[in-house]
Amino acid sequence: MTTDQLLANIKKKQSFLCVGLDSDLNKIPGHIKNDKRAVFEFNKKIIDATAPYAIAYKPNLAFYECRGIEGWKDFELTVTYLRENYPDVFLIADAKRGDIGNTSKMYAQAFFESSDVDAVTVAPYMGEDSVKPFLQFEGKFVILLALTSNPSAADFQYYSSVDHKPLFAEVLDKSKTWGNVENLMYVVGATKASVLVKIREQIPDHFLLVPGVGAQGGSLEEVAEYGMNKRCGLLVNASRSIIFAGSDTDFAEKAEAEARNLQQKMAELLKQANLI
Amino acid sequence: MTTDQLLANIKKKQSFLCVGLDSDLNKIPGHIKNDKRAVFEFNKKIIDATAPYAIAYKPNLAFYECRGIEGWKDFELTVTYLRENYPDVFLIADAKRGDIGNTSKMYAQAFFESSDVDAVTVAPYMGEDSVKPFLQFEGKFVILLALTSNPSAADFQYYSSVDHKPLFAEVLDKSKTWGNVENLMYVVGATKASVLVKIREQIPDHFLLVPGVGAQGGSLEEVAEYGMNKRCGLLVNASRSIIFAGSDTDFAEKAEAEARNLQQKMAELLKQANLI
Repeated sequence: MTTDQLLANIKKKQSFLCVGLDSDLNKIPGHIKNDKRAVFEFNKKIIDATAPYAIAYKPNLAFYECRGIEGWKDFELTVTYLRENYPDVFLIADAKRGDIGNTSKMYAQAFFESSDVDAVTVAPYMGEDSVKPFLQFEGKFVILLALTSNPSAADFQYYSSVDHKPLFAEVLDKSKTWGNVENLMYVVGATKASVLVKIREQIPDHFLLVPGVGAQGGSLEEVAEYGMNKRCGLLVNASRSIIFAGSDTDFAEKAEAEARNLQQKMAELLKQANLI
Repeated sequence: MTTDQLLANIKKKQSFLCVGLDSDLNKIPGHIKNDKRAVFEFNKKIIDATAPYAIAYKPNLAFYECRGIEGWKDFELTVTYLRENYPDVFLIADAKRGDIGNTSKMYAQAFFESSDVDAVTVAPYMGEDSVKPFLQFEGKFVILLALTSNPSAADFQYYSSVDHKPLFAEVLDKSKTWGNVENLMYVVGATKASVLVKIREQIPDHFLLVPGVGAQGGSLEEVAEYGMNKRCGLLVNASRSIIFAGSDTDFAEKAEAEARNLQQKMAELLKQANLI
């Protein structure tokens, strides 16, 4: 997918919502929990209910890997289901991979060839040669961790140099030379919305994947105020607040209501920015 | 496994060799490549040939994930084979995972419960709450990335603070308070052997997993000189230089010779250190 196509989808659905498929088997409603393919069945219903309001989906690999081969099957079935039924959605494997060059190349093949996602999240700690293999696939994106939304993000991401530049800013400055807006995006945690101003000075044009809205407490309005650019430039993710909005037979309706609610707020913000 | 058991195995085999199972299907000898379970069959032969000389094995998940479910099966079969036939070896999933707390917990379950490895490599970028869930399993280890062996390690791992302390040293100082020698080890790239002196001042007692000996060019003697402690404290990994020492029907014999050669050097170094 290109950013032009992504922007077209944002305008069409009046939304920049990404639904995080953190589909923890333990939290899946009881009436489908015992299905052999419970996680996939759950995902299908969540996807069907939220697709009118979401332009992206983000399965988090941890919630699939934790069940070994069976979990991996649910992941692959989910990817195939999305591709076949909703070919326009932007599909992110939230895997936070990263290894030495020849190994990263294998991870890139895992997600861009064996599987067929549009983007994969990558951790920057090992530097350029660990990221570059992911940038070699036409129409595919690295989403590099810059500033994450968890409390311990401050442990190292704010580690400061002699000129008081935090590590995450160094990650942005160095990595933006490795790729371009058509193959590189960044994870920027919404819980630090005020920092978005400075980040936008560094990377005005890249798309940002913003977690932390919803269960983690970030503000959508602040994210839009400080993070939106002239091509939207935002994918705002909500996971648990949507997919586990309900815990009974009406979980899909509750997820739909939650997604629609976010989409309506997003439509308003897109209008304010004259993007729709 | 405890570090006492690990040390006992080091003394028994007179070796601190870890064999990296970076079992790239494209590099597997032609006569077994077409077997449906080629990677597992290859691993079995490599393991049987090298087990007298190795105290640890380290499958790198990228080389399994890149083939989706089939690759994951080969990984699980390899883990089971090692557990059943070589219960004494220390088994490391080289996965370089790390995510927000509730997600890291899922990854920890993936490797310590769904699978049954002794240790998993973890990336530190997201800080304490991304690492801690891996530290909650009795007898299991986090092996945290500190200084890696790839050329681009310098991009961020040497990023320096106002008092000129590189990021990797900050990672060591902070993280060593999160666990102890019985649940935490570190990845320290052998290609920076001279840095080992300073690292040993920071963490005198932890075990280090040292990649970069062999195909990546690090020196075993330097690693032992600067990195060994009174309980050995080293797991030196070699991957490609052993498993792809040969590319024909004699690949297992060639791997055995390479592993034995390293083990003999290690026995000498252990004797010099009065550990055996």
